[in-house]
Amino acid sequence: MAKTNPGRFFEDYRLGETIVHAVPRTVSGGERALYHALYPARHALASSDEFARACGLGAAPMDDLITFHTVFGKTVPDISLNAVANLGYAEGHFRVPVAAGDTLRSESEVIGLKQNSNGKSGVVYVRTTGRNQRDEVVLDYVRWVMVRKGDLDAPAPETVVPELAAVVPASELVVPTGLNFSGYDFALAGEPHRWGDYEIGEQIDHVDGVTIEEAEHMLATRLWQNTAKVHFDATFRPDGQRLIYGGHVISMARALSFNGLANAQMIVGLNAGAHANPCFAGDTVKAWSEVLDKAETSAPGVGAIRLRLVATKGGDPFRLKGEDGKYLPEVLLDLDYWALMPL
Amino acid sequence: MAKTNPGRFFEDYRLGETIVHAVPRTVSGGERALYHALYPARHALASSDEFARACGLGAAPMDDLITFHTVFGKTVPDISLNAVANLGYAEGHFRVPVAAGDTLRSESEVIGLKQNSNGKSGVVYVRTTGRNQRDEVVLDYVRWVMVRKGDLDAPAPETVVPELAAVVPASELVVPTGLNFSGYDFALAGEPHRWGDYEIGEQIDHVDGVTIEEAEHMLATRLWQNTAKVHFDATFRPDGQRLIYGGHVISMARALSFNGLANAQMIVGLNAGAHANPCFAGDTVKAWSEVLDKAETSAPGVGAIRLRLVATKGGDPFRLKGEDGKYLPEVLLDLDYWALMPL
Amino acid sequence: MAKTNPGRFFEDYRLGETIVHAVPRTVSGGERALYHALYPARHALASSDEFARACGLGAAPMDDLITFHTVFGKTVPDISLNAVANLGYAEGHFRVPVAAGDTLRSESEVIGLKQNSNGKSGVVYVRTTGRNQRDEVVLDYVRWVMVRKGDLDAPAPETVVPELAAVVPASELVVPTGLNFSGYDFALAGEPHRWGDYEIGEQIDHVDGVTIEEAEHMLATRLWQNTAKVHFDATFRPDGQRLIYGGHVISMARALSFNGLANAQMIVGLNAGAHANPCFAGDTVKAWSEVLDKAETSAPGVGAIRLRLVATKGGDPFRLKGEDGKYLPEVLLDLDYWALMPL
Repeated sequence: MAKTNPGRFFEDYRLGETIVHAVPRTVSGGERALYHALYPARHALASSDEFARACGLGAAPMDDLITFHTVFGKTVPDISLNAVANLGYAEGHFRVPVAAGDTLRSESEVIGLKQNSNGKSGVVYVRTTGRNQRDEVVLDYVRWVMVRKGDLDAPAPETVVPELAAVVPASELVVPTGLNFSGYDFALAGEPHRWGDYEIGEQIDHVDGVTIEEAEHMLATRLWQNTAKVHFDATFRPDGQRLIYGGHVISMARALSFNGLANAQMIVGLNAGAHANPCFAGDTVKAWSEVLDKAETSAPGVGAIRLRLVATKGGDPFRLKGEDGKYLPEVLLDLDYWALMPL
Repeated sequence: MAKTNPGRFFEDYRLGETIVHAVPRTVSGGERALYHALYPARHALASSDEFARACGLGAAPMDDLITFHTVFGKTVPDISLNAVANLGYAEGHFRVPVAAGDTLRSESEVIGLKQNSNGKSGVVYVRTTGRNQRDEVVLDYVRWVMVRKGDLDAPAPETVVPELAAVVPASELVVPTGLNFSGYDFALAGEPHRWGDYEIGEQIDHVDGVTIEEAEHMLATRLWQNTAKVHFDATFRPDGQRLIYGGHVISMARALSFNGLANAQMIVGLNAGAHANPCFAGDTVKAWSEVLDKAETSAPGVGAIRLRLVATKGGDPFRLKGEDGKYLPEVLLDLDYWALMPL
Repeated sequence: MAKTNPGRFFEDYRLGETIVHAVPRTVSGGERALYHALYPARHALASSDEFARACGLGAAPMDDLITFHTVFGKTVPDISLNAVANLGYAEGHFRVPVAAGDTLRSESEVIGLKQNSNGKSGVVYVRTTGRNQRDEVVLDYVRWVMVRKGDLDAPAPETVVPELAAVVPASELVVPTGLNFSGYDFALAGEPHRWGDYEIGEQIDHVDGVTIEEAEHMLATRLWQNTAKVHFDATFRPDGQRLIYGGHVISMARALSFNGLANAQMIVGLNAGAHANPCFAGDTVKAWSEVLDKAETSAPGVGAIRLRLVATKGGDPFRLKGEDGKYLPEVLLDLDYWALMPL
């Protein structure tokens, strides 16, 4: 057993250390096709080379969430194998689109540590950076997780909680080089609604729903080389259920949001995210969005829109938290992100 | 809800109008691999670049049904979101094979309208055209669907029912440029039976069966960007069942027909088709074929064969309709198509 | 029914005959992506073009088991459609890695025949050879299967049982041209353990488990164009269960063995293999390995390690056979192979 990876415990992290994650991964049209099979993804920029070229890109980029999942998946064996909970995301920047043929790798810097008062676990804050084969940063983001202690007698580290931006400022958003929406084809994209048609505070029920199967979420989670046992092994949890990777719900909700947000083409910022309740096979996932903010960019015809994306497994849309301030039991995901949209 | 697509109702169609469908899609080796994973597809021409080159093509084309599903899937949000029934197909021509890297888009022209006598729905006839990035027509076909009226008070349009050919004439079949079966390798293709070995009226039981899973038909249907709720959402129908996309049954039956029709390499004409009964997960699909006609072509070594392809979920082969003239309850599909076969 | 393939019966094989198998197949990034979705495969060499280039290869090769399954799948219609049991493997040599874009085909030579004393079946020994489009042998191996007689009155052939090596000698292992592990990046590969860290007799529990779904094993088995009815048709066996293709268990176990054997990068020899008990959907597959031997190679920094890979569906690790010398009921697979590992 000595040669297998037991995962890190809370006391194994050192503030400031950098962890190089295995395993680099080359993505291709195969990953793109699987993404379209796993999720009802229809955003035109990631679907069509021709549409992407008409928008100034060389070819259709991989869906931004392929980038996210690939970068994230590599961190699991080092960051969250012994995690009790995935607590949050912040300061996510999608910096360079990923193309077929690119090879991605990840590393994480430990930027905060805080032992819990019970002495049995602690919170680890990491900034994860994904790079392509040209050493360009394709994505970086902060994530914090609660991790068990392996040795309860290990001394508590100095508490350092990083100051994190509540929202990625619009000025920090990176518009892909060459992106130009001035000749954007709304008919091919699927909806006529442009940046100016959305109002801050507006809510959109995306209407469609997808009932999730075990085979699907496992195919997806393996594809991103996420190794957490709880997603794959029906004998692991006492209730015999496999917990669905939170990222599967993110992608499902994002894809469902096409219906009403077809022109929110690229994710460029990840402001915050909470996996409010667990998702299991048999749940029917639906989604709704709320416009949180809007901003201009310097790219021709390109605006930025800040959206709350909520995934649910039942219940009415637009309901998020109860009177106690806690997420309602049917809420699966509360994600806050920036996307690019034609003006 | 105003920004989501409610789908069109019967009164929203105008005779002669052209509907440009979203979303263009670039296909690759990923779509090809998924097709082989979803269906027991073995026809050599679409499986092997080398085999295709030996037959005069530049590389293995995408399975013709990848073309069909991709072109068809785009029409769903505009044509069949509020459809009560998919009534028929006619005049389908596969004109140019699709290669990895091609980008497909679709548009449909409304060629017929007929309100039902009950005033609650009507039949919409469209001719759908799929094009590649070079504006070449890869596929066109006529489909007619029964669509609900949204406003029962909307006036009935003038009734126009297009005259449709019962069968695509052999003279209209388009053999792909360069196709040459004179050096065809029957051993690699899998069966020795050539065009001359099939007799009109001959029936073939394809023997093999595949039991269908929810995950599989949803992966397939999403891959073609078909968005009809009934395929994905177990809460949508009162019985909690997800209806399987009829095209999934077409592909399953066509792939099963390899066993006995391994040399019916390419689909070039779609004469007619009926989804006789619904298919659900757990059904075991089998298939049988009947030779309806044969024709020569001008391409070297290439003959055309017209086939009835019937998919069933139980029962004996070669039984299609009862004494009342209606499809037997175990019949899922009755498809009439032209394929190319070595002489 | 005359045109469908009934499969060969024992009396249909002739010693020394060569059977050309249909259907050639071009593999691409699509097959690679699906392999990563179907199995928790993480070996870096097959995952990353950049990692493979740093090891002297032109690009990431297909996982060696993609090669095995593709070559094997083609033999099923000719060798094992009427097989009662898949009895063993021997003398497997992986000779040339397979790259995206390669087209594979297979042929088998009948090298042994032995009718069983009951007169109802016999054992057929074949040496199967897989070649790429350049006629290079990518893989050859011996397999023997028990096949039913179709005509019980057919005379028994002369008994010829080939002499097969118990183990592929280390001197016969083919290291891919250019492979060089002297600059091997252990951090990116995922584990620090090198060839010298493993001792003969050492046992490794790979810890992780995957619960198998019907949709997954059928997707995989179709992808390799394996047509055996028993894997797909729930009406075929009296118990209504679909038997899982033994190769699916091989790939699952090999992928699970990453955890503890991350640096056993390439499979180069297949010494022996037994599918000890059947696997069905719902089983949770785990794996353990034992180091059987070690050898040096002439390639820079490259050692060879001989491993027993055991897949189980429950029970404790490191238990293989009972006091009666038979495999324990929870053992699914007992595979003996050679892999390459950095010194």
